[in-house]
Amino acid sequence: MSSSSVAPPAKPPMRDALVAAAFRLFLERGYEQTTVDDIVALAGVGRRSFFRYFPSKEDVVFPDHEGCLADMTAFLAAGDPECEPVRRVCDAARLVLRMYAENPTFSVQRYRLTKQVPGLRAYELSVVWRYERALAEYLRGRYAGRPDGTLRADVVAAAVVAAHNNALRSWLRSDGRIDADETVGHALGYVQAAFGTTAAGPAAGPASAALFGGPVEHPDDVVVLVSRRDAPLWRVVQEIETAFGRA
Amino acid sequence: MSSSSVAPPAKPPMRDALVAAAFRLFLERGYEQTTVDDIVALAGVGRRSFFRYFPSKEDVVFPDHEGCLADMTAFLAAGDPECEPVRRVCDAARLVLRMYAENPTFSVQRYRLTKQVPGLRAYELSVVWRYERALAEYLRGRYAGRPDGTLRADVVAAAVVAAHNNALRSWLRSDGRIDADETVGHALGYVQAAFGTTAAGPAAGPASAALFGGPVEHPDDVVVLVSRRDAPLWRVVQEIETAFGRA
Repeated sequence: MSSSSVAPPAKPPMRDALVAAAFRLFLERGYEQTTVDDIVALAGVGRRSFFRYFPSKEDVVFPDHEGCLADMTAFLAAGDPECEPVRRVCDAARLVLRMYAENPTFSVQRYRLTKQVPGLRAYELSVVWRYERALAEYLRGRYAGRPDGTLRADVVAAAVVAAHNNALRSWLRSDGRIDADETVGHALGYVQAAFGTTAAGPAAGPASAALFGGPVEHPDDVVVLVSRRDAPLWRVVQEIETAFGRA
Repeated sequence: MSSSSVAPPAKPPMRDALVAAAFRLFLERGYEQTTVDDIVALAGVGRRSFFRYFPSKEDVVFPDHEGCLADMTAFLAAGDPECEPVRRVCDAARLVLRMYAENPTFSVQRYRLTKQVPGLRAYELSVVWRYERALAEYLRGRYAGRPDGTLRADVVAAAVVAAHNNALRSWLRSDGRIDADETVGHALGYVQAAFGTTAAGPAAGPASAALFGGPVEHPDDVVVLVSRRDAPLWRVVQEIETAFGRA
Protein backbone atom coordinates (compact mmCIF):
# COMPACT_ATOMS: atom_id res chain seq x y z
CA MET A 1 0.00 0.00 0.00
CA SER A 2 1.42 3.38 -0.89
CA SER A 3 2.12 5.88 1.85
CA SER A 4 -0.46 8.26 0.43
CA SER A 5 -3.32 5.78 0.65
CA VAL A 6 -5.95 6.35 3.27
CA ALA A 7 -6.20 3.68 5.93
CA PRO A 8 -9.61 2.02 6.25
CA PRO A 9 -11.50 2.99 9.40
CA ALA A 10 -10.28 0.82 12.27
CA LYS A 11 -12.73 -1.70 13.67
CA PRO A 12 -13.82 -0.78 17.19
CA PRO A 13 -11.65 -2.76 19.62
CA MET A 14 -14.72 -3.60 21.72
CA ARG A 15 -16.33 -5.32 18.74
CA ASP A 16 -13.16 -7.36 18.16
CA ALA A 17 -13.00 -8.22 21.86
CA LEU A 18 -16.57 -9.50 21.76
CA VAL A 19 -15.86 -11.69 18.73
CA ALA A 20 -12.71 -13.08 20.36
CA ALA A 21 -14.51 -13.81 23.64
CA ALA A 22 -17.45 -15.42 21.83
CA PHE A 23 -15.23 -17.75 19.80
CA ARG A 24 -13.16 -18.73 22.80
CA LEU A 25 -16.34 -19.81 24.57
CA PHE A 26 -17.92 -21.44 21.51
CA LEU A 27 -14.83 -23.59 21.06
CA GLU A 28 -14.49 -24.42 24.76
CA ARG A 29 -18.13 -25.08 25.65
CA GLY A 30 -19.99 -25.31 22.38
CA TYR A 31 -22.18 -22.74 20.70
CA GLU A 32 -25.49 -23.70 22.28
CA GLN A 33 -23.99 -23.81 25.77
CA THR A 34 -22.67 -20.25 25.51
CA THR A 35 -24.97 -17.35 26.37
CA VAL A 36 -24.59 -13.69 25.50
CA ASP A 37 -24.10 -13.11 29.24
CA ASP A 38 -21.11 -15.47 29.20
CA ILE A 39 -19.63 -13.58 26.26
CA VAL A 40 -20.00 -10.12 27.76
CA ALA A 41 -18.64 -11.34 31.10
CA LEU A 42 -15.49 -12.68 29.43
CA ALA A 43 -15.09 -9.54 27.30
CA GLY A 44 -15.65 -7.36 30.38
CA VAL A 45 -18.45 -5.26 28.87
CA GLY A 46 -22.19 -4.91 29.39
CA ARG A 47 -25.00 -6.63 27.49
CA ARG A 48 -25.98 -3.40 25.82
CA SER A 49 -22.52 -3.15 24.25
CA PHE A 50 -22.98 -6.60 22.73
CA PHE A 51 -26.31 -5.72 21.17
CA ARG A 52 -24.94 -2.42 19.88
CA TYR A 53 -22.72 -4.44 17.55
CA PHE A 54 -24.65 -7.65 17.06
CA PRO A 55 -28.43 -8.09 16.79
CA SER A 56 -28.15 -11.69 18.04
CA LYS A 57 -25.73 -14.40 19.14
CA GLU A 58 -25.73 -15.76 15.60
CA ASP A 59 -24.45 -12.48 14.20
CA VAL A 60 -21.26 -12.61 16.27
CA VAL A 61 -20.35 -15.83 14.41
CA PHE A 62 -20.33 -13.95 11.11
CA PRO A 63 -19.04 -10.52 12.12
CA ASP A 64 -17.65 -9.51 8.72
CA HIS A 65 -20.45 -10.34 6.29
CA GLU A 66 -22.33 -7.03 6.62
CA GLY A 67 -19.15 -5.13 5.80
CA CYS A 68 -18.31 -7.50 2.96
CA LEU A 69 -21.80 -7.22 1.47
CA ALA A 70 -21.49 -3.44 1.58
CA ASP A 71 -18.04 -3.63 -0.05
CA MET A 72 -19.36 -5.94 -2.75
CA THR A 73 -22.34 -3.71 -3.51
CA ALA A 74 -20.06 -0.66 -3.71
CA PHE A 75 -17.64 -2.56 -5.96
CA LEU A 76 -20.44 -3.50 -8.35
CA ALA A 77 -21.90 0.00 -8.35
CA ALA A 78 -18.49 1.51 -9.10
CA GLY A 79 -17.92 -0.68 -12.16
CA ASP A 80 -17.22 0.72 -15.57
CA PRO A 81 -20.52 0.30 -17.46
CA GLU A 82 -18.49 -1.13 -20.35
CA CYS A 83 -17.03 -3.96 -18.30
CA GLU A 84 -18.16 -7.48 -19.07
CA PRO A 85 -20.93 -8.30 -16.53
CA VAL A 86 -20.01 -11.93 -15.79
CA ARG A 87 -16.40 -10.98 -15.19
CA ARG A 88 -17.54 -8.20 -12.89
CA VAL A 89 -19.63 -10.47 -10.68
CA CYS A 90 -16.81 -13.02 -10.60
CA ASP A 91 -14.47 -10.30 -9.38
CA ALA A 92 -17.08 -9.29 -6.80
CA ALA A 93 -17.23 -12.90 -5.56
CA ARG A 94 -13.46 -12.92 -5.16
CA LEU A 95 -13.86 -10.18 -2.53
CA VAL A 96 -15.78 -12.62 -0.34
CA LEU A 97 -13.13 -15.33 -0.45
CA ARG A 98 -10.51 -12.71 0.25
CA MET A 99 -12.39 -11.78 3.43
CA TYR A 100 -12.20 -15.41 4.57
CA ALA A 101 -8.56 -15.71 3.54
CA GLU A 102 -7.57 -12.64 5.54
CA ASN A 103 -8.01 -14.63 8.71
CA PRO A 104 -7.57 -18.35 7.98
CA THR A 105 -7.55 -19.57 11.58
CA PHE A 106 -10.80 -17.82 12.41
CA SER A 107 -12.42 -18.92 9.16
CA VAL A 108 -11.50 -22.57 9.66
CA GLN A 109 -12.72 -22.55 13.27
CA ARG A 110 -16.00 -21.03 12.20
CA TYR A 111 -16.40 -23.56 9.42
CA ARG A 112 -16.16 -26.40 11.95
CA LEU A 113 -18.56 -24.66 14.29
CA THR A 114 -21.09 -23.98 11.53
CA LYS A 115 -21.10 -27.61 10.46
CA GLN A 116 -22.07 -28.66 13.99
CA VAL A 117 -24.88 -26.18 14.69
CA PRO A 118 -28.01 -26.39 12.49
CA GLY A 119 -29.10 -22.87 13.46
CA LEU A 120 -25.84 -21.48 12.13
CA ARG A 121 -26.25 -23.39 8.87
CA ALA A 122 -29.62 -21.67 8.42
CA TYR A 123 -28.05 -18.30 9.20
CA GLU A 124 -25.31 -18.97 6.68
CA LEU A 125 -27.86 -19.86 4.00
CA SER A 126 -29.52 -16.48 4.52
CA VAL A 127 -26.14 -14.74 4.18
CA VAL A 128 -25.35 -16.66 0.99
CA TRP A 129 -28.77 -15.71 -0.35
CA ARG A 130 -28.02 -12.02 0.25
CA TYR A 131 -24.75 -12.25 -1.69
CA GLU A 132 -26.56 -14.03 -4.50
CA ARG A 133 -29.27 -11.36 -4.57
CA ALA A 134 -26.63 -8.60 -4.69
CA LEU A 135 -24.98 -10.23 -7.71
CA ALA A 136 -28.33 -10.95 -9.38
CA GLU A 137 -29.54 -7.36 -8.87
CA TYR A 138 -26.40 -6.04 -10.53
CA LEU A 139 -26.78 -8.45 -13.45
CA ARG A 140 -30.48 -7.67 -13.84
CA GLY A 141 -29.50 -4.04 -14.29
CA ARG A 142 -26.84 -4.95 -16.84
CA TYR A 143 -29.15 -7.30 -18.75
CA ALA A 144 -32.18 -5.01 -18.54
CA GLY A 145 -34.15 -4.99 -21.77
CA ARG A 146 -32.52 -8.14 -23.08
CA PRO A 147 -34.65 -11.19 -23.74
CA ASP A 148 -34.52 -13.43 -20.68
CA GLY A 149 -32.53 -10.76 -18.82
CA THR A 150 -33.75 -11.72 -15.34
CA LEU A 151 -33.41 -15.43 -16.08
CA ARG A 152 -29.86 -14.97 -17.22
CA ALA A 153 -29.08 -12.74 -14.23
CA ASP A 154 -30.48 -15.22 -11.71
CA VAL A 155 -28.78 -18.25 -13.25
CA VAL A 156 -25.38 -16.59 -13.59
CA ALA A 157 -25.54 -15.22 -10.03
CA ALA A 158 -26.38 -18.68 -8.67
CA ALA A 159 -23.60 -20.30 -10.70
CA VAL A 160 -21.06 -17.74 -9.47
CA VAL A 161 -22.08 -18.27 -5.84
CA ALA A 162 -21.95 -22.06 -6.23
CA ALA A 163 -18.49 -21.91 -7.80
CA HIS A 164 -17.30 -19.54 -5.07
CA ASN A 165 -18.67 -21.80 -2.34
CA ASN A 166 -17.12 -24.88 -3.93
CA ALA A 167 -13.74 -23.12 -3.86
CA LEU A 168 -14.33 -21.80 -0.34
CA ARG A 169 -15.05 -25.31 0.95
CA SER A 170 -11.91 -26.68 -0.72
CA TRP A 171 -9.90 -23.93 0.90
CA LEU A 172 -11.48 -24.44 4.34
CA ARG A 173 -10.97 -28.21 4.15
CA SER A 174 -7.31 -27.61 3.42
CA ASP A 175 -7.23 -25.63 6.70
CA GLY A 176 -6.50 -22.55 4.67
CA ARG A 177 -3.30 -24.04 3.23
CA ILE A 178 -4.07 -24.02 -0.51
CA ASP A 179 -3.96 -20.72 -2.37
CA ALA A 180 -7.37 -19.09 -1.95
CA ASP A 181 -7.17 -16.73 -4.90
CA GLU A 182 -6.02 -19.43 -7.30
CA THR A 183 -8.68 -21.87 -6.10
CA VAL A 184 -11.52 -19.41 -6.52
CA GLY A 185 -10.12 -18.19 -9.83
CA HIS A 186 -10.18 -21.71 -11.20
CA ALA A 187 -13.76 -22.27 -10.05
CA LEU A 188 -15.00 -18.92 -11.37
CA GLY A 189 -13.24 -19.58 -14.66
CA TYR A 190 -15.61 -22.46 -15.16
CA VAL A 191 -18.60 -20.11 -14.86
CA GLN A 192 -17.00 -17.46 -17.05
CA ALA A 193 -16.39 -20.01 -19.78
CA ALA A 194 -20.04 -21.07 -19.64
CA PHE A 195 -21.66 -17.65 -19.50
CA GLY A 196 -19.09 -14.99 -20.18
CA THR A 197 -19.19 -12.70 -23.16
CA THR A 198 -16.84 -10.75 -25.31
CA ALA A 199 -16.34 -7.04 -25.03
CA ALA A 200 -18.18 -6.77 -28.32
CA GLY A 201 -21.37 -8.31 -27.00
CA PRO A 202 -22.92 -11.47 -25.79
CA ALA A 203 -20.85 -14.49 -26.27
CA ALA A 204 -20.40 -18.11 -26.34
CA GLY A 205 -22.70 -18.13 -23.37
CA PRO A 206 -24.56 -21.27 -23.82
CA ALA A 207 -21.96 -22.62 -26.13
CA SER A 208 -24.17 -25.08 -27.83
CA ALA A 209 -24.23 -23.00 -30.97
CA ALA A 210 -20.76 -24.25 -31.62
CA LEU A 211 -21.53 -27.83 -30.85
CA PHE A 212 -19.18 -29.98 -32.85
CA GLY A 213 -18.55 -26.87 -34.83
CA GLY A 214 -15.74 -24.47 -35.25
CA PRO A 215 -14.05 -22.27 -32.73
CA VAL A 216 -15.97 -19.84 -30.54
CA GLU A 217 -14.43 -16.50 -29.80
CA HIS A 218 -14.18 -15.72 -26.13
CA PRO A 219 -13.40 -12.52 -24.28
CA ASP A 220 -9.93 -11.12 -24.16
CA ASP A 221 -8.37 -13.17 -26.85
CA VAL A 222 -9.37 -16.55 -25.61
CA VAL A 223 -10.26 -19.16 -28.18
CA VAL A 224 -12.41 -22.16 -27.43
CA LEU A 225 -12.43 -25.09 -29.80
CA VAL A 226 -14.88 -27.93 -29.51
CA SER A 227 -14.32 -30.97 -31.64
CA ARG A 228 -15.15 -34.63 -31.87
CA ARG A 229 -12.18 -36.78 -30.99
CA ASP A 230 -12.52 -38.64 -34.26
CA ALA A 231 -12.26 -35.49 -36.38
CA PRO A 232 -9.31 -35.53 -38.79
CA LEU A 233 -6.37 -33.81 -37.09
CA TRP A 234 -5.52 -31.71 -40.15
CA ARG A 235 -9.02 -30.21 -40.02
CA VAL A 236 -8.70 -29.38 -36.35
CA VAL A 237 -5.37 -27.68 -36.91
CA GLN A 238 -6.83 -25.76 -39.82
CA GLU A 239 -9.64 -24.50 -37.61
CA ILE A 240 -7.20 -23.52 -34.92
CA GLU A 241 -5.13 -21.57 -37.43
CA THR A 242 -8.23 -19.76 -38.62
CA ALA A 243 -9.29 -19.02 -35.06
CA PHE A 244 -5.86 -17.69 -34.21
CA GLY A 245 -5.92 -15.57 -37.31
CA ARG A 246 -2.77 -17.14 -38.66
CA ALA A 247 -4.01 -19.16 -41.57
CA MET B 1 -53.82 -42.51 -16.84
CA SER B 2 -54.55 -46.08 -17.86
CA SER B 3 -57.19 -48.03 -16.00
CA SER B 4 -54.57 -50.50 -14.83
CA SER B 5 -52.46 -47.86 -13.10
CA VAL B 6 -52.29 -47.93 -9.33
CA ALA B 7 -53.61 -44.84 -7.55
CA PRO B 8 -51.08 -43.08 -5.29
CA PRO B 9 -51.68 -43.52 -1.56
CA ALA B 10 -54.30 -41.01 -0.45
CA LYS B 11 -53.14 -38.25 1.90
CA PRO B 12 -54.60 -38.60 5.38
CA PRO B 13 -57.69 -36.39 5.54
CA MET B 14 -56.62 -35.08 8.97
CA ARG B 15 -53.39 -33.78 7.53
CA ASP B 16 -55.30 -31.99 4.77
CA ALA B 17 -57.76 -30.61 7.31
CA LEU B 18 -54.89 -29.18 9.37
CA VAL B 19 -53.35 -27.50 6.31
CA ALA B 20 -56.73 -26.04 5.31
CA ALA B 21 -57.41 -24.73 8.82
CA ALA B 22 -53.91 -23.28 9.12
CA PHE B 23 -54.16 -21.39 5.82
CA ARG B 24 -57.61 -20.06 6.59
CA LEU B 25 -56.26 -18.58 9.83
CA PHE B 26 -52.99 -17.35 8.31
CA LEU B 27 -54.94 -15.45 5.66
CA GLU B 28 -57.54 -14.10 8.09
CA ARG B 29 -55.31 -13.13 11.03
CA GLY B 30 -51.76 -13.30 9.74
CA TYR B 31 -49.16 -15.99 10.26
CA GLU B 32 -47.59 -14.61 13.45
CA GLN B 33 -50.98 -14.06 15.08
CA THR B 34 -52.02 -17.68 14.55
CA THR B 35 -51.00 -20.31 17.09
CA VAL B 36 -50.94 -24.09 16.74
CA ASP B 37 -53.75 -24.11 19.31
CA ASP B 38 -55.86 -21.94 17.01
CA ILE B 39 -55.21 -24.31 14.11
CA VAL B 40 -56.10 -27.50 15.99
CA ALA B 41 -59.22 -25.85 17.45
CA LEU B 42 -60.48 -24.95 13.97
CA ALA B 43 -59.60 -28.38 12.57
CA GLY B 44 -61.27 -30.04 15.54
CA VAL B 45 -58.29 -32.20 16.51
CA GLY B 46 -55.79 -32.30 19.37
CA ARG B 47 -52.31 -30.73 19.51
CA ARG B 48 -50.69 -34.14 19.34
CA SER B 49 -52.34 -34.78 15.98
CA PHE B 50 -50.81 -31.58 14.65
CA PHE B 51 -47.30 -32.52 15.74
CA ARG B 52 -47.71 -36.04 14.38
CA TYR B 53 -47.79 -34.50 10.90
CA PHE B 54 -45.80 -31.29 11.31
CA PRO B 55 -42.74 -30.73 13.49
CA SER B 56 -43.52 -26.99 13.72
CA LYS B 57 -45.92 -24.28 12.60
CA GLU B 58 -43.57 -23.46 9.73
CA ASP B 59 -43.84 -26.98 8.34
CA VAL B 60 -47.60 -26.69 7.82
CA VAL B 61 -46.90 -23.84 5.37
CA PHE B 62 -44.91 -26.20 3.14
CA PRO B 63 -46.74 -29.49 3.57
CA ASP B 64 -45.66 -31.07 0.27
CA HIS B 65 -41.92 -30.48 0.15
CA GLU B 66 -40.90 -33.60 2.07
CA GLY B 67 -42.90 -35.76 -0.31
CA CYS B 68 -41.59 -33.91 -3.33
CA LEU B 69 -37.98 -34.22 -2.15
CA ALA B 70 -38.51 -37.95 -1.72
CA ASP B 71 -40.07 -38.19 -5.19
CA MET B 72 -37.19 -36.25 -6.71
CA THR B 73 -34.56 -38.42 -5.03
CA ALA B 74 -36.35 -41.57 -6.20
CA PHE B 75 -36.65 -40.16 -9.72
CA LEU B 76 -32.91 -39.45 -9.86
CA ALA B 77 -32.00 -42.83 -8.41
CA ALA B 78 -34.21 -44.61 -10.95
CA GLY B 79 -32.57 -42.92 -13.93
CA ASP B 80 -31.00 -44.89 -16.72
CA PRO B 81 -27.24 -44.59 -16.06
CA GLU B 82 -26.83 -43.72 -19.74
CA CYS B 83 -29.11 -40.70 -19.58
CA GLU B 84 -27.54 -37.30 -19.93
CA PRO B 85 -27.01 -35.93 -16.39
CA VAL B 86 -27.97 -32.28 -16.98
CA ARG B 87 -31.18 -33.30 -18.71
CA ARG B 88 -31.95 -35.64 -15.84
CA VAL B 89 -31.63 -32.94 -13.16
CA CYS B 90 -33.70 -30.56 -15.30
CA ASP B 91 -36.44 -33.20 -15.48
CA ALA B 92 -36.15 -33.66 -11.71
CA ALA B 93 -36.63 -29.90 -11.22
CA ARG B 94 -39.78 -30.03 -13.33
CA LEU B 95 -41.30 -32.31 -10.70
CA VAL B 96 -41.10 -29.47 -8.18
CA LEU B 97 -42.90 -26.96 -10.37
CA ARG B 98 -45.50 -29.59 -11.14
CA MET B 99 -46.16 -29.93 -7.40
CA TYR B 100 -46.83 -26.16 -7.21
CA ALA B 101 -48.95 -26.23 -10.37
CA GLU B 102 -51.16 -29.01 -9.03
CA ASN B 103 -52.75 -26.54 -6.68
CA PRO B 104 -52.41 -23.01 -8.07
CA THR B 105 -54.67 -21.24 -5.55
CA PHE B 106 -52.82 -22.68 -2.56
CA SER B 107 -49.40 -22.00 -4.14
CA VAL B 108 -50.23 -18.36 -4.91
CA GLN B 109 -51.63 -17.77 -1.40
CA ARG B 110 -48.52 -19.26 0.13
CA TYR B 111 -46.28 -17.16 -2.08
CA ARG B 112 -47.93 -13.99 -0.76
CA LEU B 113 -47.68 -15.22 2.81
CA THR B 114 -44.03 -16.19 2.47
CA LYS B 115 -43.11 -12.77 1.13
CA GLN B 116 -44.58 -11.15 4.24
CA VAL B 117 -43.03 -13.34 6.95
CA PRO B 118 -39.22 -13.30 7.29
CA GLY B 119 -39.22 -16.57 9.24
CA LEU B 120 -40.92 -18.33 6.34
CA ARG B 121 -38.40 -16.89 3.89
CA ALA B 122 -35.64 -18.50 5.97
CA TYR B 123 -37.52 -21.79 6.04
CA GLU B 124 -37.97 -21.64 2.28
CA LEU B 125 -34.25 -21.05 1.77
CA SER B 126 -33.50 -24.21 3.73
CA VAL B 127 -35.96 -26.16 1.54
CA VAL B 128 -34.41 -24.77 -1.64
CA TRP B 129 -31.01 -25.73 -0.31
CA ARG B 130 -32.17 -29.33 0.21
CA TYR B 131 -33.41 -29.57 -3.39
CA GLU B 132 -30.11 -28.14 -4.60
CA ARG B 133 -28.14 -30.65 -2.52
CA ALA B 134 -30.23 -33.53 -3.88
CA LEU B 135 -29.46 -32.46 -7.46
CA ALA B 136 -25.79 -31.82 -6.67
CA GLU B 137 -25.39 -35.22 -4.97
CA TYR B 138 -26.80 -36.95 -8.04
CA LEU B 139 -24.49 -35.00 -10.35
CA ARG B 140 -21.47 -35.62 -8.13
CA GLY B 141 -22.14 -39.31 -8.57
CA ARG B 142 -22.47 -38.95 -12.33
CA TYR B 143 -19.34 -36.81 -12.61
CA ALA B 144 -17.31 -38.87 -10.13
CA GLY B 145 -13.72 -39.29 -11.22
CA ARG B 146 -13.88 -36.48 -13.75
CA PRO B 147 -11.66 -33.45 -13.32
CA ASP B 148 -13.64 -30.76 -11.51
CA GLY B 149 -16.52 -33.19 -11.01
CA THR B 150 -17.75 -31.66 -7.76
CA LEU B 151 -17.34 -28.13 -9.09
CA ARG B 152 -19.35 -28.97 -12.18
CA ALA B 153 -22.00 -30.75 -10.08
CA ASP B 154 -22.41 -27.83 -7.67
CA VAL B 155 -22.54 -25.17 -10.39
CA VAL B 156 -25.01 -27.06 -12.57
CA ALA B 157 -27.27 -27.85 -9.59
CA ALA B 158 -27.30 -24.19 -8.54
CA ALA B 159 -28.03 -23.04 -12.09
CA VAL B 160 -30.91 -25.53 -12.42
CA VAL B 161 -32.43 -24.40 -9.12
CA ALA B 162 -32.07 -20.72 -10.06
CA ALA B 163 -33.72 -21.29 -13.43
CA HIS B 164 -36.52 -23.28 -11.79
CA ASN B 165 -37.10 -20.56 -9.19
CA ASN B 166 -37.10 -17.85 -11.83
CA ALA B 167 -39.82 -19.75 -13.70
CA LEU B 168 -41.71 -20.49 -10.49
CA ARG B 169 -41.78 -16.80 -9.56
CA SER B 170 -43.03 -15.86 -13.04
CA TRP B 171 -45.77 -18.44 -12.71
CA LEU B 172 -46.72 -17.33 -9.18
CA ARG B 173 -46.79 -13.66 -10.20
CA SER B 174 -49.16 -14.55 -13.03
CA ASP B 175 -51.44 -16.01 -10.32
CA GLY B 176 -50.86 -19.41 -11.86
CA ARG B 177 -52.30 -18.31 -15.21
CA ILE B 178 -49.32 -18.86 -17.51
CA ASP B 179 -48.39 -22.40 -18.51
CA ALA B 180 -46.15 -23.77 -15.74
CA ASP B 181 -44.55 -26.55 -17.76
CA GLU B 182 -43.74 -24.31 -20.69
CA THR B 183 -42.32 -21.58 -18.43
CA VAL B 184 -40.02 -23.92 -16.57
CA GLY B 185 -39.07 -25.70 -19.78
CA HIS B 186 -37.91 -22.44 -21.29
CA ALA B 187 -35.88 -21.52 -18.20
CA LEU B 188 -34.28 -24.96 -17.92
CA GLY B 189 -33.52 -24.88 -21.62
CA TYR B 190 -31.19 -22.00 -20.92
CA VAL B 191 -29.24 -24.09 -18.42
CA GLN B 192 -29.20 -27.12 -20.72
CA ALA B 193 -27.78 -24.99 -23.51
CA ALA B 194 -25.02 -23.76 -21.22
CA PHE B 195 -24.10 -27.04 -19.59
CA GLY B 196 -26.03 -29.82 -21.19
CA THR B 197 -25.63 -31.99 -24.14
CA THR B 198 -27.54 -32.87 -27.22
CA ALA B 199 -29.29 -36.10 -27.95
CA ALA B 200 -26.29 -36.95 -30.10
CA GLY B 201 -23.90 -36.55 -27.23
CA PRO B 202 -22.49 -34.12 -24.74
CA ALA B 203 -21.69 -30.64 -25.74
CA ALA B 204 -19.31 -27.85 -25.33
CA GLY B 205 -20.41 -27.27 -21.78
CA PRO B 206 -18.16 -25.00 -19.89
CA ALA B 207 -14.66 -25.54 -20.93
CA SER B 208 -13.16 -23.46 -18.29
CA ALA B 209 -11.39 -26.06 -16.31
CA ALA B 210 -8.79 -25.49 -18.89
CA LEU B 211 -9.13 -21.76 -19.13
CA PHE B 212 -5.80 -20.56 -20.42
CA GLY B 213 -4.69 -24.14 -19.99
CA GLY B 214 -4.58 -27.29 -21.97
CA PRO B 215 -7.38 -29.32 -23.46
CA VAL B 216 -10.18 -30.75 -21.37
CA GLU B 217 -11.44 -34.16 -22.17
CA HIS B 218 -15.18 -34.30 -22.42
CA PRO B 219 -17.33 -37.35 -22.41
CA ASP B 220 -18.20 -39.25 -25.50
CA ASP B 221 -15.32 -38.33 -27.64
CA VAL B 222 -15.60 -34.60 -27.48
CA VAL B 223 -12.52 -32.52 -26.88
CA VAL B 224 -12.64 -28.92 -25.74
CA LEU B 225 -9.60 -26.75 -26.04
CA VAL B 226 -9.36 -23.33 -24.47
CA SER B 227 -6.36 -21.23 -25.28
CA ARG B 228 -5.16 -17.67 -25.36
CA ARG B 229 -5.09 -16.35 -28.87
CA ASP B 230 -1.45 -15.32 -28.41
CA ALA B 231 -0.30 -18.79 -27.39
CA PRO B 232 2.40 -20.25 -29.66
CA LEU B 233 0.66 -22.29 -32.34
CA TRP B 234 3.07 -25.23 -32.02
CA ARG B 235 2.09 -25.58 -28.37
CA VAL B 236 -1.58 -25.54 -29.16
CA VAL B 237 -1.16 -28.21 -31.80
CA GLN B 238 0.92 -30.29 -29.39
CA GLU B 239 -1.87 -30.08 -26.83
CA ILE B 240 -4.46 -31.03 -29.41
CA GLU B 241 -2.41 -34.05 -30.42
CA THR B 242 -2.16 -35.13 -26.81
CA ALA B 243 -5.87 -34.62 -26.28
CA PHE B 244 -6.70 -36.61 -29.37
CA GLY B 245 -4.37 -39.34 -28.23
CA ARG B 246 -2.31 -39.14 -31.37
CA ALA B 247 0.93 -37.61 -30.17
